[in-house]
Amino acid sequence: MDISIFSLGQLDPASSQPMYLQIAENIAAGIRDRKIPPNAKLPPERQLAIHYGVSRTTAINTYRKLEEWDLVLTKIGSGTYVTGGSGEAAMLPMPWQQLLVPHLKGPLAGILRELLSADLSGKTISMATGTPDPTIYPATTFNDLLNCRNADLTNADLGHISTEGYLPLRTQLAALQNQKGGNATADNIAVVSGSQQGLYLLAKIFINPGDYVVVEAPTYLCAIPTFQAAGARILSLPAPGPLQLDLLEDYIIRHRPKLLYIMPTYQNPSGRTINLSERQALLALAAKHRLIIIEDDPYSDFHYDQQPPPSLKTLDSYGGVIYLSTFSKTLFPGLRIGWVVASEAVITRLALEKQYVDLHSANLSQWQLNEFLRRGSFAGHLDAIRGEYQKRRDATATALRRYCGDSLTFFVPAGGFYFWCKLTHPSATSRQLLQEATRLGVSFVPGEAFYSDREESRDFRLCFATNPSSVLQEGIKRLAKALSSLTKIWDDGARTVRRTSKPII
Amino acid sequence: MDISIFSLGQLDPASSQPMYLQIAENIAAGIRDRKIPPNAKLPPERQLAIHYGVSRTTAINTYRKLEEWDLVLTKIGSGTYVTGGSGEAAMLPMPWQQLLVPHLKGPLAGILRELLSADLSGKTISMATGTPDPTIYPATTFNDLLNCRNADLTNADLGHISTEGYLPLRTQLAALQNQKGGNATADNIAVVSGSQQGLYLLAKIFINPGDYVVVEAPTYLCAIPTFQAAGARILSLPAPGPLQLDLLEDYIIRHRPKLLYIMPTYQNPSGRTINLSERQALLALAAKHRLIIIEDDPYSDFHYDQQPPPSLKTLDSYGGVIYLSTFSKTLFPGLRIGWVVASEAVITRLALEKQYVDLHSANLSQWQLNEFLRRGSFAGHLDAIRGEYQKRRDATATALRRYCGDSLTFFVPAGGFYFWCKLTHPSATSRQLLQEATRLGVSFVPGEAFYSDREESRDFRLCFATNPSSVLQEGIKRLAKALSSLTKIWDDGARTVRRTSKPII
Repeated sequence: MDISIFSLGQLDPASSQPMYLQIAENIAAGIRDRKIPPNAKLPPERQLAIHYGVSRTTAINTYRKLEEWDLVLTKIGSGTYVTGGSGEAAMLPMPWQQLLVPHLKGPLAGILRELLSADLSGKTISMATGTPDPTIYPATTFNDLLNCRNADLTNADLGHISTEGYLPLRTQLAALQNQKGGNATADNIAVVSGSQQGLYLLAKIFINPGDYVVVEAPTYLCAIPTFQAAGARILSLPAPGPLQLDLLEDYIIRHRPKLLYIMPTYQNPSGRTINLSERQALLALAAKHRLIIIEDDPYSDFHYDQQPPPSLKTLDSYGGVIYLSTFSKTLFPGLRIGWVVASEAVITRLALEKQYVDLHSANLSQWQLNEFLRRGSFAGHLDAIRGEYQKRRDATATALRRYCGDSLTFFVPAGGFYFWCKLTHPSATSRQLLQEATRLGVSFVPGEAFYSDREESRDFRLCFATNPSSVLQEGIKRLAKALSSLTKIWDDGARTVRRTSKPII
Repeated sequence: MDISIFSLGQLDPASSQPMYLQIAENIAAGIRDRKIPPNAKLPPERQLAIHYGVSRTTAINTYRKLEEWDLVLTKIGSGTYVTGGSGEAAMLPMPWQQLLVPHLKGPLAGILRELLSADLSGKTISMATGTPDPTIYPATTFNDLLNCRNADLTNADLGHISTEGYLPLRTQLAALQNQKGGNATADNIAVVSGSQQGLYLLAKIFINPGDYVVVEAPTYLCAIPTFQAAGARILSLPAPGPLQLDLLEDYIIRHRPKLLYIMPTYQNPSGRTINLSERQALLALAAKHRLIIIEDDPYSDFHYDQQPPPSLKTLDSYGGVIYLSTFSKTLFPGLRIGWVVASEAVITRLALEKQYVDLHSANLSQWQLNEFLRRGSFAGHLDAIRGEYQKRRDATATALRRYCGDSLTFFVPAGGFYFWCKLTHPSATSRQLLQEATRLGVSFVPGEAFYSDREESRDFRLCFATNPSSVLQEGIKRLAKALSSLTKIWDDGARTVRRTSKPII
């Protein structure tokens, strides 16, 4: 081989690093860059010594070092060669998929990804994701806050803070909670990076693998995999209609579940609200059987007809209710701030777990939210968006009745973000409808996403929060068109049964 | 009992809620508030009907409902009573400690809590925690950014973003990485909520319970519990001094570890930097045995003498190195932004896991950091703080030599935040020194905190970053005082052996 490719440029005889090492690194770089190819024969030591102007011992040491690094191989009586075999193998791409811990995948991961990519195209009217309308985020107020000189960040605001959250914010969150009838102090509050993180941490600190968890069916889409990832087995309590306390008691007696996860007010996705008497009966049952309740409450500020009943947390004299909420719906999702209200023992343990996850939530979000609340801007903001969302709910109800009334049933939710619809045709599936609907430019989430145990359903969820009334109306017209073209197919009985269960003999 | 305590005030005959339920809720509230005490006898149904002006059937239904809620008990032939027994039991405090999943506690949790509370008193000079000096956080620059009208937040900046992070920031982080000799694109970058979160997620996606992980000993304090929480068994590779590749290969052959976690540059806590030739040899060994390396690199920008060698990630042609860093040291910890550089397959899997944890990191921090980097303020900021920290390192070295030279050995680190000291007295322990030192008003972290398997040691870590040189000097004087009073005790052999191992027969 041509020895001139061994460059002399970067050697420094005055360096504290010995020459043999400098030369070895030089050659190693050439081998790695493939300037010196695998299996190439390197020049004899003597020739190398002359080329670099060093002693023969230095040249020998250079090759020894390269051997140590597995970059060259000396064949006695033949010479020194760049390693081919193992060098080649080392260049194989890393088989990362096989090195990673397998990821729990629900059967719906695919559909949800599709939905998201459809929504990103911009042509589809999304009634799928449960996000508020970006045009009514309080961006201006937040900018004003940031631009207000007298609220400058200080150095103390930028360092590590306690895992439980920025203390002034926790104090305000306790006050917010108590306005609705609690008796929380800052010690009962943990700030979390969105209510999803709250749920994740609660699952981590309460669930041992094999524990049972009762959830509503349907329930919040991400709750099921979060509990399952912690090793929980899921028991389902039917959600639309009255609270089935007899079934819950049956579950408790049979399975001794670790906790009940419930969204009592304007439930996602069913829109159901549990009335006061049901709440009291639920608490009595929980107290009797010492059941822990996680009350998820992201929507109670979105009441369109009258105030909702008090939260379970407020009514709870037994002490077993843990409350969870978020600013993702009332302010904006990118804030990533939710909060947990619980006994101090639970907050302390939750913080220990949160330390591993992120030490504490980001200071800027907490500082800014604290300023926003401190200036009393929150109540007015809520009134404004509540009025707008109420109009959207009413427009959606009117359009659904007018355009789709024959094909589906629904009830008008008293609050929250969602209509939960059921296809009336006995042969219908919401997944078929979704395929046709996305083709026509409107999307929603099919019902099976909200259950732990269904592969298809006739239910689906429509979110009316993200778009203004006129867009919602157009979306529902498209939905009606999809329904009418599918109804013919369903009538013709063209729906093939794709999976038949045969006994394996 | 006096029936007048059953208030009539809140009943509404026009309500859609039946009267019996309204009355039952009314009485239930009284029972919960203890206005109607446990075991009290309630008025007969007839009397209740008259009091509320309702039919006898309504009164009967009222008591039936209260029975259903387990609030009252009807004894035939005797009357209706508020439940005492079970009602009493339900008021027992929740035994939260027993309901929670046990928390892994290292033997040092206590010491670290003590340290932290000592530091919070304000009188102690802290050389314990590894945080930068708050007085040199770029708070002014960050405020200016926020106050600059032309960089206003838009609504799009406030919604959900991808779990991998804000795309403009990821693009800039890739560029930052490539300046140092990489070839990353935004697809190779995940923004995480501090490098602790990066480590947590990497442990989650790579470690199955029982897997071995090799770490340096001593190593980053939080790495050990993070890997252990994922179920890993820890193998220790001695850190001060040259890299022990023969031992590493022995571990690989014996235990087939899943990964090596290493901080090659200005290691926390030992200050050790692995030289170029060792880096190349390590990569050759990793390639030969297909070992995954997590390279943690929070300190390489803090070089005080000369540029450090290139990162393992830069030198890696094999493809098995995952790189992790943070802005907690270079900017400020409250930003909660770190980043991971890895193959796209790893980034994708890591994002799936991060979805559970917080959906994505907070937008405001990412947006603000992106602006800061975009304006080119970072390099100048680094130069400024590097100069200041270099002075502090030199002052610490001088003071240690002058005041403590007889009692401990150390080497001067070429970069980073820490001196790793060893007590020379054979009877010394760093925990004894810490007790005396905190009494005299200076704190540090005893060496055993950085090992997976030591209960005491003669090493300890001094952080020179948090305080200016004059304060550091005073801190070291106090340390010297603690040393001199303990040396007498150690000389007298007064150190009692607290634990003797006896065979159990």
